[in-house]
Amino acid sequence: MKLYIGNKNYSSWSLRPWLTLKGLGIPFEEVQLQFDDFGPGSQFHAALDRLGAGVRKVPILVEDDGFAVWETLAIAEYIADRHPESPVWPRDAKARARARSYCAEMHAGFGSIRNLCPMNIEAFFPDVGARLIETEPGLRKDLARIDQIWNEALQASGGPFLFGKEFGAADAYFAPVVMRVTRFALPLSPMAAAYAKTIEQLPAMQEWIAAALQEQSYVAEDEPYRKAR
Amino acid sequence: MKLYIGNKNYSSWSLRPWLTLKGLGIPFEEVQLQFDDFGPGSQFHAALDRLGAGVRKVPILVEDDGFAVWETLAIAEYIADRHPESPVWPRDAKARARARSYCAEMHAGFGSIRNLCPMNIEAFFPDVGARLIETEPGLRKDLARIDQIWNEALQASGGPFLFGKEFGAADAYFAPVVMRVTRFALPLSPMAAAYAKTIEQLPAMQEWIAAALQEQSYVAEDEPYRKAR
Ligand SMILES: N[C@@H](CCC(=O)N[C@@H](CS)C(=O)NCC(=O)O)C(=O)O
Ligand SMILES: N[C@@H](CCC(=O)N[C@@H](CS)C(=O)NCC(=O)O)C(=O)O
Repeated sequence: MKLYIGNKNYSSWSLRPWLTLKGLGIPFEEVQLQFDDFGPGSQFHAALDRLGAGVRKVPILVEDDGFAVWETLAIAEYIADRHPESPVWPRDAKARARARSYCAEMHAGFGSIRNLCPMNIEAFFPDVGARLIETEPGLRKDLARIDQIWNEALQASGGPFLFGKEFGAADAYFAPVVMRVTRFALPLSPMAAAYAKTIEQLPAMQEWIAAALQEQSYVAEDEPYRKAR
Repeated sequence: MKLYIGNKNYSSWSLRPWLTLKGLGIPFEEVQLQFDDFGPGSQFHAALDRLGAGVRKVPILVEDDGFAVWETLAIAEYIADRHPESPVWPRDAKARARARSYCAEMHAGFGSIRNLCPMNIEAFFPDVGARLIETEPGLRKDLARIDQIWNEALQASGGPFLFGKEFGAADAYFAPVVMRVTRFALPLSPMAAAYAKTIEQLPAMQEWIAAALQEQSYVAEDEPYRKAR
């Protein structure tokens, strides 16, 4: 199967299924589409239109027969369905339900941190982060909830991952948040900060970060705080 | 188990798991919390705080031992996990993946129709709908995508439900959209209009609608187009 993704430096949604697959050692082929201005002449949209899934966003997982699954949460469920041997979700039913509640909350929410602190792996904006935390109540609320979720899950499972000794889709779902909080130097509780470090140091995450640093693209839409890379 | 929901007239998210459970004949106890202004003195928030799930939104499913699952998509997965005998999701793996892609798309998207045409079951706003369709490109885009999803699914499955002869979570996920398009009289293709009628006429949907019509509440936040009920 092929996973279509965007720029590794910027594409927070792409990172989630990519890290799930890599982190769990499930083989797949990666196809990268370059972000552009997503305007009328967008090559990015044209490439997605050729896939025929009816959506113009990445990530999309495409099977050898052309069958496509889109939306990160649906891709996570599809991977879990196809790989029951792999701990995509926790094996315990209650932990699994909690993992899905957290991920669905992330899928639909956290608008302030997503808008104000876009993922930009190669950049470092501690001054912007310090200013935003002062001026944006929505960002403080999002960050407090993220810290609460991480503490709650880590305390219940014993860590080092959200649901215990095994990395899974819930960790992948929060990996873009780890990139945001570290790049904008947002304040975290000690347990949440340690968890962020665990995720950043995962070999699969290090592989994604190294590739992001190699990219030389500058996408204005994702760069509210710089004029060039 | 108990399902905490909001006002039936307004609470589009509550409708989804309620209709899934009712439509599939899975027993549950319903607990209704009245919407208020969600301000600092909110009784609605206070009641949710007492549940201790860490979230202040409905729906929430609470087991007899106090274990809570929140977020509609996670609740749908939990119901499917607990009731493998029930066709919550399609039994065919590819249809199941498509159902989840559609639902996840709805979970995170369709902001224009959700904001501009809030669910308000007892009201009828054909003039507002006609105006909005003229002036709001985002609403036209959302509606076109909904129509496309319904046609695609119904053509592939043969109907009358999105995934064939059995009602499931994907239909419940689009039921609030059915309430919006009918109450705002938004234009649909013939196949999509027939599907909307199928959903509106479901006994479980009729039961919810009857209860919504009995409610006498007026929640200003959900009423951009009226000053009173
Ligand atoms: N809810 C979607 C979000 C996907 C998304 O927004 N992807 C962005 C890149 S990170 C995209 O492809 N944007 C293109 C566009 O908006 O036209 C998911 O979970 O997959
Ligand atoms: N993504 C959530 C959305 C839930 C939601 O927004 N619920 C509304 C009522 S329909 C609510 O409880 N709002 C209270 C608030 O915003 O404080 C889900 O899928 O359950």
